[in-house]
Amino acid sequence: MANLPHTETPLLASRIIAGDIRAAARLMSDIDDEKESALAELKELFHKTGKAHIIGITGAPGAGKSTLVNTLVGELRQRNRSIGVIAVDPTSPFTGGAILGDRIRMQQYTNDEGVFIRSLATRGYMGGVSRATHHIARVMDAMGKDIIIIETVGVGQDEVDIVNMADTSIVVLVPGQGDTIQAIKAGILEIADIFVINKCEREGSVKLEQELKIMLEMAGHHSDFWIPPITKTESIKNVGIIELINLIFSHKKALQENRFQNNNDRKRAEFEFFEILKSDVTKTILRHLRENGAFEQIIQAIAEKEKDPYSAAEEVIKNWLSHT
Amino acid sequence: MANLPHTETPLLASRIIAGDIRAAARLMSDIDDEKESALAELKELFHKTGKAHIIGITGAPGAGKSTLVNTLVGELRQRNRSIGVIAVDPTSPFTGGAILGDRIRMQQYTNDEGVFIRSLATRGYMGGVSRATHHIARVMDAMGKDIIIIETVGVGQDEVDIVNMADTSIVVLVPGQGDTIQAIKAGILEIADIFVINKCEREGSVKLEQELKIMLEMAGHHSDFWIPPITKTESIKNVGIIELINLIFSHKKALQENRFQNNNDRKRAEFEFFEILKSDVTKTILRHLRENGAFEQIIQAIAEKEKDPYSAAEEVIKNWLSHT
Repeated sequence: MANLPHTETPLLASRIIAGDIRAAARLMSDIDDEKESALAELKELFHKTGKAHIIGITGAPGAGKSTLVNTLVGELRQRNRSIGVIAVDPTSPFTGGAILGDRIRMQQYTNDEGVFIRSLATRGYMGGVSRATHHIARVMDAMGKDIIIIETVGVGQDEVDIVNMADTSIVVLVPGQGDTIQAIKAGILEIADIFVINKCEREGSVKLEQELKIMLEMAGHHSDFWIPPITKTESIKNVGIIELINLIFSHKKALQENRFQNNNDRKRAEFEFFEILKSDVTKTILRHLRENGAFEQIIQAIAEKEKDPYSAAEEVIKNWLSHT
Repeated sequence: MANLPHTETPLLASRIIAGDIRAAARLMSDIDDEKESALAELKELFHKTGKAHIIGITGAPGAGKSTLVNTLVGELRQRNRSIGVIAVDPTSPFTGGAILGDRIRMQQYTNDEGVFIRSLATRGYMGGVSRATHHIARVMDAMGKDIIIIETVGVGQDEVDIVNMADTSIVVLVPGQGDTIQAIKAGILEIADIFVINKCEREGSVKLEQELKIMLEMAGHHSDFWIPPITKTESIKNVGIIELINLIFSHKKALQENRFQNNNDRKRAEFEFFEILKSDVTKTILRHLRENGAFEQIIQAIAEKEKDPYSAAEEVIKNWLSHT
């Protein structure tokens, strides 16, 4: 998204900060399309961000994340919170719903101005889906949303990155699917602030809770001021939702009271800086290589096996980094 | 994986080329763990690669990709082809099988030396899962595998990148799931060389075929010498598998006969060079920033909202790229 120097004047940012929903939707589309202009807007918005409480919800396909999000949104609206929802789960009704034949949920919020829903297209994103998610969360934050819920399926580094950006990370498990092992493999067990056992009416619910407790004791805590609780829901029947919301607010409060031990701002800063640097530095180098014709030579040499891509990259880096 | 300069001596490469399966498995683990030493090995192996025919198989969860791969492997073994299978589908029995409760398939090949199966762990991979897949395919190629099958679920850029590296890209669809629209959204319709309608006994099979044909006519062909055919399988009953294999070999032949129009080698070279450059240049810069203390200052400034991450990245790039 970034070529140097940037000369665009941000046109949408002030409208977004003033609450213009169409301007926000427009900028999100520009982020989707990786338009150059989106960068200037994001820069402008950055200083207005940091107020929203970001909730990351992850779990395997079929764990009932979407129903849970749906129910959470309903309860939070009752409490007058404005909400942004970002669905990056390809098996979610909002993004890839056709896969599961379920496309109609959440439609109840279509006419509610307090709820802004955005699903991420499943293609594109030079910078990766996690980077796009960060950007879109920043926009919702600048819109003044009190709470941003990011729903993602718990597989792959992208998802770990997304959950990692949340203030409160929720891992949803269901009985009888061997989910605990999957969660460990995916690396999401260590980053959860709250565990939800959804579909808790199912057989195996007690066993799953016991397994989880053992696993958590083995893993140790990732925070000095918060021991991740395990709570049970049956979201389709609205069971356990109020308890879950209370836990979310307790966690939020704990974060605020332990501001100096809370490194969420830092984590997010590191991730965003790292992602932007990675993408922009590569684009800058490639643009120069293309302009002076070296790119064509390098690719040709690799394609014809005269040079391996590892050495080719090394040479370019040695050549281009002034301080190495 | 790359710090400059590299002084490691490759110890596994020659053993892998000689057919040592344990050495290959070891290197793949090192790639998983992003060990520095893996780079030297990959460099050494690179010149022995380029012989395998790589088949990419993608489709939505539940499309029956794993059963199809299983059946394909059986048929190809009958024809004495040595095979590598890379499973990067998180819903596949090989990687995230617990999700679907199906972990036992492919066990029939455990004792067959002609089949090497590797599933990619669903976490980690600084350089992205597509990069790790490329590396592992290179190792299997150097092992002398005739055919490498990469199975992936058709969502996200990673998957498009993976399918894009294949010589023959197969998209698996099933009737009655709205898959065509999903495939278009995911950007995989344009890159398919062969379409498989799996579970073709299901209602809606004819309708899906018609939809696909219309869509393909609308989209136009991505190759001058190959019109992507649509074939039907019921892989669980072995129906249509021989026809599919014939199509794969026809496509392979067409690629060979049209070598100059075939830009697969180039595509792969571009992708690998791009991915390696991106990861290595960023690591090199970050290492220097950390060593001279600038990293800490930058992250602090972003976390405290004194600076936005976009401008911070710009400044670093301006500072570090000697030619800009």
